[in-house]
Amino acid sequence: MSRSSSRPLRNVLFIMCDQLRADYLSCYGHPRLHTPHIDALAARGMRFRQAYVQGSVCGASRMSIYTGRYVSSHGAMWNFVPLSVGQKTLGEHLRPHGVRCALVGKTHVEPDREGARRLGLDITQGEGRLAMEGGFEPYARDDGIWPPGFKVSGNAYCDWLREHGLVSDNPWHDFANSGRGPQGEILSGWQMRWARSPAAIAEPFSETPYTTDRAIDFMREAGDAPWVLHLSYIKPHWPYVAPAPYHAMYGPADVLPAVRSEAERAGAHPVLEGFRREEASRNFSRDEVRDTVIPTYMGLVRQVDDQLGRLFAFMAEQGLDRETLVIFTSDHGDYLGDHWLGEKELFHDPIVRVPLIVADPRAEADAARGSASDALVECIDILPTVLDALGLAQPAEWLEGETLLPLVHGRGAAAGKDFVVCENSYAFRDAVRLPLGQPVERCHMTMLRTQRWKFVHFEDLPPLLFDLETDPQELTDLGRDPAHAAVRERMLGHMFDWLRARSRFPTIAPAAIEAWNRREREAGILIGAW
Amino acid sequence: MSRSSSRPLRNVLFIMCDQLRADYLSCYGHPRLHTPHIDALAARGMRFRQAYVQGSVCGASRMSIYTGRYVSSHGAMWNFVPLSVGQKTLGEHLRPHGVRCALVGKTHVEPDREGARRLGLDITQGEGRLAMEGGFEPYARDDGIWPPGFKVSGNAYCDWLREHGLVSDNPWHDFANSGRGPQGEILSGWQMRWARSPAAIAEPFSETPYTTDRAIDFMREAGDAPWVLHLSYIKPHWPYVAPAPYHAMYGPADVLPAVRSEAERAGAHPVLEGFRREEASRNFSRDEVRDTVIPTYMGLVRQVDDQLGRLFAFMAEQGLDRETLVIFTSDHGDYLGDHWLGEKELFHDPIVRVPLIVADPRAEADAARGSASDALVECIDILPTVLDALGLAQPAEWLEGETLLPLVHGRGAAAGKDFVVCENSYAFRDAVRLPLGQPVERCHMTMLRTQRWKFVHFEDLPPLLFDLETDPQELTDLGRDPAHAAVRERMLGHMFDWLRARSRFPTIAPAAIEAWNRREREAGILIGAW
Repeated sequence: MSRSSSRPLRNVLFIMCDQLRADYLSCYGHPRLHTPHIDALAARGMRFRQAYVQGSVCGASRMSIYTGRYVSSHGAMWNFVPLSVGQKTLGEHLRPHGVRCALVGKTHVEPDREGARRLGLDITQGEGRLAMEGGFEPYARDDGIWPPGFKVSGNAYCDWLREHGLVSDNPWHDFANSGRGPQGEILSGWQMRWARSPAAIAEPFSETPYTTDRAIDFMREAGDAPWVLHLSYIKPHWPYVAPAPYHAMYGPADVLPAVRSEAERAGAHPVLEGFRREEASRNFSRDEVRDTVIPTYMGLVRQVDDQLGRLFAFMAEQGLDRETLVIFTSDHGDYLGDHWLGEKELFHDPIVRVPLIVADPRAEADAARGSASDALVECIDILPTVLDALGLAQPAEWLEGETLLPLVHGRGAAAGKDFVVCENSYAFRDAVRLPLGQPVERCHMTMLRTQRWKFVHFEDLPPLLFDLETDPQELTDLGRDPAHAAVRERMLGHMFDWLRARSRFPTIAPAAIEAWNRREREAGILIGAW
Repeated sequence: MSRSSSRPLRNVLFIMCDQLRADYLSCYGHPRLHTPHIDALAARGMRFRQAYVQGSVCGASRMSIYTGRYVSSHGAMWNFVPLSVGQKTLGEHLRPHGVRCALVGKTHVEPDREGARRLGLDITQGEGRLAMEGGFEPYARDDGIWPPGFKVSGNAYCDWLREHGLVSDNPWHDFANSGRGPQGEILSGWQMRWARSPAAIAEPFSETPYTTDRAIDFMREAGDAPWVLHLSYIKPHWPYVAPAPYHAMYGPADVLPAVRSEAERAGAHPVLEGFRREEASRNFSRDEVRDTVIPTYMGLVRQVDDQLGRLFAFMAEQGLDRETLVIFTSDHGDYLGDHWLGEKELFHDPIVRVPLIVADPRAEADAARGSASDALVECIDILPTVLDALGLAQPAEWLEGETLLPLVHGRGAAAGKDFVVCENSYAFRDAVRLPLGQPVERCHMTMLRTQRWKFVHFEDLPPLLFDLETDPQELTDLGRDPAHAAVRERMLGHMFDWLRARSRFPTIAPAAIEAWNRREREAGILIGAW
């Protein structure tokens, strides 16, 4: 947790996409999907090629990013699991230093209402209210995702659509995330078969430009006071529906072959088999589905890129670029049919490896500017990086990540961490859990990835093991291979070490522990004196 | 976490001593110290011969008891470490069910003021105020322990002493915990050399009767509404000063030989060596010190026993005995020179094994009434036992212990748990830590004890291992013995299992996880539908 000694920056723009795979950006090597503005950001900063999320679903991953702590440490183990009032978030680290921490877009924070009731906390105002927002000032919060028929009220985006004549109970669904059939009928984005239909909305009214506009509004209003803005796009997360022209920008010819093999399915690990039984996996295993959905997924990514181009131009025009650290990442990826899987939840690279770009405008970053790093880094490193960029202390009792600025400034250890960790639980998925007869308490999964190996630990079941040197596509599971017993033992050893090193004592700072004996003596406490 | 199906009881009296070794009670085998009232309680209930605390200092042990969670789970790793606002305590489990949870005596709870500030919590009233008291209604809180010269204000016991003519800045120290010399000079209890002097106070004004009076006051006032009363005596914790006649009730002839051997000191584990360098250890290794202190320690225990006799008589007179579960325990023991050590902190049985008596007045307990159990149990089992006795649910997402009532009712597994766990850190002890050059983050110690073995894990140092079958006095450390490598491996395996099984997700109940897929479908969320 060494700190940068550079002149502090004034602002941080922390951009996140939802469900964006690292390899669906041209700067990360996609041969057909061109993302020039994100590529330009990478050219202004450092691009991390081995950045890993700490949870493989939105909620858990985001809570790790917002607290700088592993999932086992913050406790919000899956989506819609409340973030305990006992956890300290980015905004709570920043506000005492006079730095605003605002949100535009999605957080997926589930408030700990039970904890608030237990404490008698006033959640209608002040810090209590912000705690229910995961510590963010909700400048323009929009978590999206409403099922058809849901009557949406009190949502700014839906209200804005209605003001512009797009009136229904659920304009998010009926216009922004659905197409129209020949008779004007709604083609719901909740059914992937309609993914090629353009959204029933003009492009400027779709979620990505709306969200970008709110970020620009925020920057205009914020003036010269320091801020951290979390600009958090919902896309390219499903529903897979894009407005014209993005719905038709790519076609089946642009779809890369699925990374999968027949051999993967024979005698597969029972948890993989379970997830392959899910509807999303069954559908994404069909080429028709991939050819329908992936072009639209690509269009949604391209739309984000275009909007970021607009935002970056605004920032340059305002001179904000010189005072602002920019971070770009995603909360996890999307299988899109790789490994005969759809959606997310498991630990192949399409899910757990995410894009991570850090662009520091200061001269200290010039040496490494535009380069890519193969260091193993984690998304819990983002929060320490934000604090470091602003010149703030990094409370070791809370933070489990490390600032990335030494790497960004070309001074860090090229290999990064010995291993990175990602967690999830299949307790929430009946199709996986029930056939295994596992109680919900024993469905936790822990992935460790070193430079060479990826290992996934399950309770009461064999592990998964992939040799990323000889099998970078993760097609051959060595988890039950007798020849790799020693590797598995070593990975279990890492996991044991990792568990013991968790931040379990966040209410006392290391410096206070070190000072204890002196304080005790000064207070006149004499233990065992004769 | 099976629950008793008995008629719920109305009250629980949960009595705790501080620093009381299990073997300093006659019902636990002390040949010289007679504790008839505690023995009578044991005859009315079940006496656990292998009950272990979860922390080996007051604060950590108590927070485990008050939360029903291991130290690594509640995070208050040592004395004076704040109990996070994110933790749920006994009182917070009880109050929503209309059960008062009051405190008379000591808790050692350090409020999480930083957490309260972060949340904007009002700590002057309501649940916010109680949260700063570890969830207890502070009917008569008194944590004691003030150094000489400290100006005590706002403490009810000190005020009461002053009202009775015992006037000074610190009457707790100057009268209740000190003797008087020939010229009337204060012989401070902070110096053990004065342990044989009677306290400068008449017995009814000393802490133990005062505390008992407050418990009686509470029971009188509480009426028929259900309550849990935590009666928490400060004694026999140091200062080792007893009022007459208790100061002279025992003498050097009553002092049992120290459990120690010369061989123990040769090539001892460096952490043991470190604690043996502490002043308390050096002093307690001298017979003069033991002969001076231990008789007084015994007198203080005897005074507690007499006061409990008074309390139990009052309860019987009021008919409260028929409606009240009584639990008696201690937060840890006292080395008193055993193993060349003074004070506590480490994991020999004199410290981590405590008395635990559970007396259930209901007929279901008749079968096992008056018996002793060798089941391995933990003090985190007390909170689930309290909830069970009152007929309340036991939230598995919070509780890491198990109700003891099946054992108390003669229906439990005779062996108890596979192993029990106790934790501590030597980070707070410069004399131990600095010579080892360990950073404060790597001073955590974890003890596991099975029916046969006691194992203590240290970071970066060899473990301790005792064979309790052949060496019940724990005189021979097998932690580096090549012949016991397989045992150590097995114990490490238990520790790895234990770490993975920690309650890491307290904001979601298992039943809510099980119901998730149904709720998702009902909400109309269709993931990956075609």
